[in-house]
Amino acid sequence: MLGLMQDRPLALPHVFHRAEQLFGHKRLITAEASGERVTTVAEWAVRVRRLATVLDSLGLSADARVGTFCWNTDRHLELYLAAPCTGRVLHTLNIRLFPEQLVYIVNHAEDEVVFVDRSLLPLLWPLVDKFETVRHIVVIDDGAEHEIPEDPRVRDYEELLAAAEPFAGRFTVEEENSAAAMCYTSGTTGNPKGVVYSHRSAVLHSLITLTSDAFALSERDVVLPIVPMFHANAWGIPYGALLAGADLVLPGPNMTPEAIVGQLERHRVTVTGGVPTIWMGVRPLLADHDLSSLRAIVCGGSAVPRSLSEAYREAIGVPMLHAWGMTETSPIASVSSRRSHQEEWSEDERADARARQGQPVPFVDLRIADPESGEELPWDDRATGELQAAGPWIAKEYYRGEGGGAQFTKDGWLRTGDVAAVDGWGFVRLVDRTKDLVKSGGEWISSVDLENEIMAHPAVAEAAVIAIPHEKWTERPLACVVVKPGRSLTAEELIEFLTPRVAKWWLPDAVEFIDEVPKTSVGKFSKKTLRDKFAGYTLPS
Amino acid sequence: MLGLMQDRPLALPHVFHRAEQLFGHKRLITAEASGERVTTVAEWAVRVRRLATVLDSLGLSADARVGTFCWNTDRHLELYLAAPCTGRVLHTLNIRLFPEQLVYIVNHAEDEVVFVDRSLLPLLWPLVDKFETVRHIVVIDDGAEHEIPEDPRVRDYEELLAAAEPFAGRFTVEEENSAAAMCYTSGTTGNPKGVVYSHRSAVLHSLITLTSDAFALSERDVVLPIVPMFHANAWGIPYGALLAGADLVLPGPNMTPEAIVGQLERHRVTVTGGVPTIWMGVRPLLADHDLSSLRAIVCGGSAVPRSLSEAYREAIGVPMLHAWGMTETSPIASVSSRRSHQEEWSEDERADARARQGQPVPFVDLRIADPESGEELPWDDRATGELQAAGPWIAKEYYRGEGGGAQFTKDGWLRTGDVAAVDGWGFVRLVDRTKDLVKSGGEWISSVDLENEIMAHPAVAEAAVIAIPHEKWTERPLACVVVKPGRSLTAEELIEFLTPRVAKWWLPDAVEFIDEVPKTSVGKFSKKTLRDKFAGYTLPS
Repeated sequence: MLGLMQDRPLALPHVFHRAEQLFGHKRLITAEASGERVTTVAEWAVRVRRLATVLDSLGLSADARVGTFCWNTDRHLELYLAAPCTGRVLHTLNIRLFPEQLVYIVNHAEDEVVFVDRSLLPLLWPLVDKFETVRHIVVIDDGAEHEIPEDPRVRDYEELLAAAEPFAGRFTVEEENSAAAMCYTSGTTGNPKGVVYSHRSAVLHSLITLTSDAFALSERDVVLPIVPMFHANAWGIPYGALLAGADLVLPGPNMTPEAIVGQLERHRVTVTGGVPTIWMGVRPLLADHDLSSLRAIVCGGSAVPRSLSEAYREAIGVPMLHAWGMTETSPIASVSSRRSHQEEWSEDERADARARQGQPVPFVDLRIADPESGEELPWDDRATGELQAAGPWIAKEYYRGEGGGAQFTKDGWLRTGDVAAVDGWGFVRLVDRTKDLVKSGGEWISSVDLENEIMAHPAVAEAAVIAIPHEKWTERPLACVVVKPGRSLTAEELIEFLTPRVAKWWLPDAVEFIDEVPKTSVGKFSKKTLRDKFAGYTLPS
Repeated sequence: MLGLMQDRPLALPHVFHRAEQLFGHKRLITAEASGERVTTVAEWAVRVRRLATVLDSLGLSADARVGTFCWNTDRHLELYLAAPCTGRVLHTLNIRLFPEQLVYIVNHAEDEVVFVDRSLLPLLWPLVDKFETVRHIVVIDDGAEHEIPEDPRVRDYEELLAAAEPFAGRFTVEEENSAAAMCYTSGTTGNPKGVVYSHRSAVLHSLITLTSDAFALSERDVVLPIVPMFHANAWGIPYGALLAGADLVLPGPNMTPEAIVGQLERHRVTVTGGVPTIWMGVRPLLADHDLSSLRAIVCGGSAVPRSLSEAYREAIGVPMLHAWGMTETSPIASVSSRRSHQEEWSEDERADARARQGQPVPFVDLRIADPESGEELPWDDRATGELQAAGPWIAKEYYRGEGGGAQFTKDGWLRTGDVAAVDGWGFVRLVDRTKDLVKSGGEWISSVDLENEIMAHPAVAEAAVIAIPHEKWTERPLACVVVKPGRSLTAEELIEFLTPRVAKWWLPDAVEFIDEVPKTSVGKFSKKTLRDKFAGYTLPS
């Protein structure tokens, strides 16, 4: 027997029309080179309607991939709605990818057009001749002074909008499972892989950002997403803010700590979100600014250092709100918000809980499993296994079948590649990436934990641990260590330092001193590069 | 092009397994005749699993309608999950319906079993022989002393559970549009009509109760739904509380103001919900109880009197949070929560806004339309029209096609039968029911507004206004007035009182004094009965 409820698709046109109808008076504030632009949702909505007409007039296919190479701006937000509301697929290009990766993903997605901020032209233009399917480069003039190439493919965003009539009537997307947006993983191994979001996943994920124990976005909020709109939907904040009716403050190209803290203070921002690096940069400025309006600082992208979160709590009374997810999970999968069982805890215990990746949000299921046998492991905070995720905004495969399904289980869960323990409250604690674990004698050594212990040595600037094949133990750890300028350190001194701090069988079999730890395009440790460098390495017997 | 997200159904098993896995330690507190029963979600979940086995062992069909005739209790909450999680359809029977209506809906839904609280047996048992498809009456012993009939159809709930093994593994419902629950309208005209909720509508509607600008249910809440679980999903609070992981306090059969205020105080309840009548009853007790834990008093079911809301705000600092909806809308369609544009308003203006029915929640669309031409009307707070609703938890038709679709527009929106104005912020203000409007000379007279003016006379106990056919003006108002005991009032005195208060053409053409305004089974004015009584009435010329 079927229910008798209306067959209304869960689709982004609802988000657009809701914002236009109910929240036309709310503000969109964007920082540009020439100052701040303040506009309203009503004015923005008319521009979205014009842009919809522009997409038609450019002759794009019905499901064209629409590339964007943009900062967090109101213009980018116009594209966020106009592309999917007209049936096209918003393809956010991560400006931090290596050039060859950018060329790869534009061609792989078969983008027909790329919208680019003028300030980002120098990064994009040298690659344009390698884009096989791109027919238009639409330049959004953000006041940067970079020269605009004279080329028949180049169009001006404002000229196109000015010439277009606003689309009249309501946008419709009948099939909620149709593609709304896509984003490629930054790819620490192999080529970037495309994740394709549906309208259904996008609106459900947006709604989650409004729930109390996630970000609790409300009409009364003023929201500043520092997390880039060019990657992983900016954690769902742009769509969520529109759905809630919050004011949006957008930082544009100027991501200096001074610019960010200025916007936070000036606009009485209540909710913001960014990666730990951002908050490390802002931290020294806290004392000189009034940030009393802030109620939540969402932090994710990598593990939130406990000390950073505590520094904010001590300075302004607001610790980090750690959220966890990845491109493949839209990305919000878990949030470490406060729970009633913590009421009796000490501030210290709460800080420990806040440094965890938190509890799955509604509609998301998480489990940990032995990465080889697939056996599900208990939630006792001791057992560690591969974290796997299921839910309506979690990927089931990559675009065009890339990766051959290796990252998905037989029963359809995403293998996140993270290794985690989960406590009895369902709070996740990441310990490593599966591929970075050192498998020694049937047990696992967490490379991340070992690195943290090594980096606790006062002479160490940074360190990465990789596994080296070993005849007897399968694998053993090699520590790759960068010594701080002006300091010295020997392998023996380091081992002596570690001996009281880790289990004896965790002690590295060798220490190599290097100049720096290689990084990926988005700034993460590239252990792949290190493994290549030390391929064939012989451990001392 | 399709999205590549997991095909996870939006279905109630997720709500159950989430609560069981993450919130096993949370409390369920139920008031019974013999005192309060405190249990945990973990213990409750085992009982749900046993109950699932019981439903099989009773030989129910795969999609059997499972009737419940119960108060708000943890047992009723067991049925709320066990029935839909095993593919059956929870059919909550409104204990306030007239006996012939109850017989009608049990037979119309073809219930195979009815679960009944022992304290409600005297209402149900006399009807059982008229139930055509019911094979089992399962009595939930709530400590009431009513005799349990010796009859082969009668089974004991606890005995059945004790004999059943808990269902092992995960519940699955593959088709999210399959029926999860049903509820009949109380029906002021004609027979009650069945609304059939799907799994999809139930979980989406539950999620809405967690969003900031709705009820903002959180894991840290202690929630007391006074609104009955036997009608309209208790406003989504039971499923919402499970999804959020809140503690639940359930009032059982004792709905006296003293019992309610005792539970609110004793359990430090943070969110509660009930109809205005409940809060009128509790109001005199506010001064003697510590209700400082309360953060939200959800109120709906009928318009919230501004004075009642203000009395609560003045006494305990928490006004009513007015939510609007109906059986056909699951029911949450709009909520009158605080908005940023009200920040600068006076407390008086805010009180006016709080007395409105509020702004549509995410995923719900509302519009007002001329009930005859269907033309959409502007949101200027002046134009009034029929309120129509669309969204994934709004009915598209009634069970077995009852009503012939008259309550739905050609484009699939629900015609709510309410007449409303909407202001520029999208805040709804109900003015009447469409069928109660008086259509005079091409204009409408709101019977509700006119009644309010009449009831402002100090000698009037209650009053209802109905339309009487009129040759020249189409219709003219007749006032049916109940005078307070010991007071006297003439028609002339009333008209004189009204003259400075309403437009001249709103003045009733006649006044009839009656002993009481007839009521429906759920306590609303039955204007149908009045119209029948005054059929053929001749207005003075």
